[in-house]
Amino acid sequence: MEHTYAVIMAGGGGTRLWPVSRKDSPKQLLPLLGQETLFQSTINRLEGLFPPERILVVTVEEQASQMRVQTPAIPRENYLIEPEPRGTASVVGLAAAILKKHDPEAVMAILTADHFIRNRDLFHYLIRAAFDVASKDYLVTLGITPTFPSTGYGYIEQGESLDGDYKYPVYKVKRFKEKPDQQTAEQLMRAGNHSWNSGMFVWKVDAILAEIKRQMPQLSETILAIAEVWDTDRREEVVNSRWKKLKSQTIDYGIMEKAKYVAVLPAGGLGWSDVGSWDSLFEVLLPDMNGNVPVNTQHLLLDTHNTLIYGKSDEHLIVTIGLDDFVVVDSGDVILICKTDQAQKVKDVVEHLKKHKQEKYL
Amino acid sequence: MEHTYAVIMAGGGGTRLWPVSRKDSPKQLLPLLGQETLFQSTINRLEGLFPPERILVVTVEEQASQMRVQTPAIPRENYLIEPEPRGTASVVGLAAAILKKHDPEAVMAILTADHFIRNRDLFHYLIRAAFDVASKDYLVTLGITPTFPSTGYGYIEQGESLDGDYKYPVYKVKRFKEKPDQQTAEQLMRAGNHSWNSGMFVWKVDAILAEIKRQMPQLSETILAIAEVWDTDRREEVVNSRWKKLKSQTIDYGIMEKAKYVAVLPAGGLGWSDVGSWDSLFEVLLPDMNGNVPVNTQHLLLDTHNTLIYGKSDEHLIVTIGLDDFVVVDSGDVILICKTDQAQKVKDVVEHLKKHKQEKYL
Repeated sequence: MEHTYAVIMAGGGGTRLWPVSRKDSPKQLLPLLGQETLFQSTINRLEGLFPPERILVVTVEEQASQMRVQTPAIPRENYLIEPEPRGTASVVGLAAAILKKHDPEAVMAILTADHFIRNRDLFHYLIRAAFDVASKDYLVTLGITPTFPSTGYGYIEQGESLDGDYKYPVYKVKRFKEKPDQQTAEQLMRAGNHSWNSGMFVWKVDAILAEIKRQMPQLSETILAIAEVWDTDRREEVVNSRWKKLKSQTIDYGIMEKAKYVAVLPAGGLGWSDVGSWDSLFEVLLPDMNGNVPVNTQHLLLDTHNTLIYGKSDEHLIVTIGLDDFVVVDSGDVILICKTDQAQKVKDVVEHLKKHKQEKYL
Repeated sequence: MEHTYAVIMAGGGGTRLWPVSRKDSPKQLLPLLGQETLFQSTINRLEGLFPPERILVVTVEEQASQMRVQTPAIPRENYLIEPEPRGTASVVGLAAAILKKHDPEAVMAILTADHFIRNRDLFHYLIRAAFDVASKDYLVTLGITPTFPSTGYGYIEQGESLDGDYKYPVYKVKRFKEKPDQQTAEQLMRAGNHSWNSGMFVWKVDAILAEIKRQMPQLSETILAIAEVWDTDRREEVVNSRWKKLKSQTIDYGIMEKAKYVAVLPAGGLGWSDVGSWDSLFEVLLPDMNGNVPVNTQHLLLDTHNTLIYGKSDEHLIVTIGLDDFVVVDSGDVILICKTDQAQKVKDVVEHLKKHKQEKYL
């Protein structure tokens, strides 16, 4: 595992976990699943794979200070602060360009800061396998074998098996597919040759920089120019003059869809979840015999089943009678009561609050 | 309406309206339906029927001070403080005995402090009609024509029509029936000759004192002895020595069931509710076009129907997604979420809290 680096993408907000996830305390900085925050779990999960000095964190200024407190082992200079959000293609490219300056043979794993992975051993195994494939100049994506016909994830269709002696089955990618409707999701799952797009990638910096140069020449020029002056006192000047002119673009649609050598490792049994909404958080928690999960609350549940009661503190007593399949969230200032299968609508609530300038609840 | 008096029974707690109704702020002292408290509404409803000096309030010491602030027109000496709870038979008897000392020809209407009545004109009409019947020495009960097969009220079976020229149909009472099960309630409603027992009664003090003497001679002696010294400095001494020895008994089962001359006025269209639980409070409030009633809260309701959102203040934002037929109550320290048809179970919650000595929530 020489020349390997982890790049943690950690700028997101997590609006579907509102009202607990807020502008000033976004999802990845919260101990949503226990003692550790999702960000801390992400870093701890890398123990044995990457030493702290080879872990880069891509984030925004407001979150970096909290992250430094949460994971003091990561060196201060390993935080790559996004000057202004310009999409994952831009930051991944910049991280690759900066890594290449320091280590021309660098191979990087793009990882997400706010996901849950139950099976850490398998995760390590898969990352090593992915580095193995990446060493052959492939852009490698970690796919997740679907466990239900989700309409909330993008899908990756696998093509033929990759030639070679790999430690895990690996396939060429036929195409990337956007979030499907329910019927399509069921078809994709039945087809058996589709994975969820986890947002985790492994590649040589050379390989990704070459694809960026081929598909997005303007971005390529910009990131190389910035990387050139990154360690000098001209960084701010060049960032200000060039970064802000970039178009926002995601790595998936900007690069991966039309990239030449793309492979997928379809991972099953990883116990992965994006913990993106209350229903998916609920799924990774261990329910009691009534199917309820009470977290961090004073509560009294009568005739209540399959319900998540999630508190940020225990200042309120929460009493439920006759609830089935609900999520109840108490953030102190907001009480959310939501049918589990409508948990995606929390996003609409946040939109509504933004529109009506209810800043104190955002 | 000479010699007529109103006696308001106002000692109750209202545990099924927990967590808003609490030990120190019971149901009747709360503005549950708007600006006025139920107690204030009860007093205001009597305007034009009884002058304030002929309204007696039977209550406990802790509530009297708040009542005096809420309805300053009622003279201080008209509060009859129950030394210790001994059931409605005891306090009604004592009120009758005291009234008789002051006015031997007194006729009294026993009224409840914590009920809702929409149609005030009809209420006045019925009370006058009841006084008319009571003048013929009947013990008169105000029955409520059932609007649904309730299992929460006692029932009164009417017998034959009373002879005489009355302003409203009036019947002899055949029997009192305890709260029925669902099947029986449906039968009683279909039968057409049953009313709910509203707990409102009208009678001459002479008539009720005679029945008490006949059926409960020990109670009779005690209340006459206490009434004898009520206006003297021996009141406390006699109350202490005699009242506390009484057995607790309700007027319904202690007296009415075996009384000789009992009549019922079956009132329909009164818009009466005992506002005894969240579902019955919900029924008397005016819903919006989705069937929701938001009271006193900041709220955001998505895909929510037939739901009562009841706040005591607007310190929390309450967000609901996908609720149908629920009651959500925010008392500041407690959040109650309850399927409307299980609202009776709130009582079980209060019992549980008592048992576990959770005093701060009682």
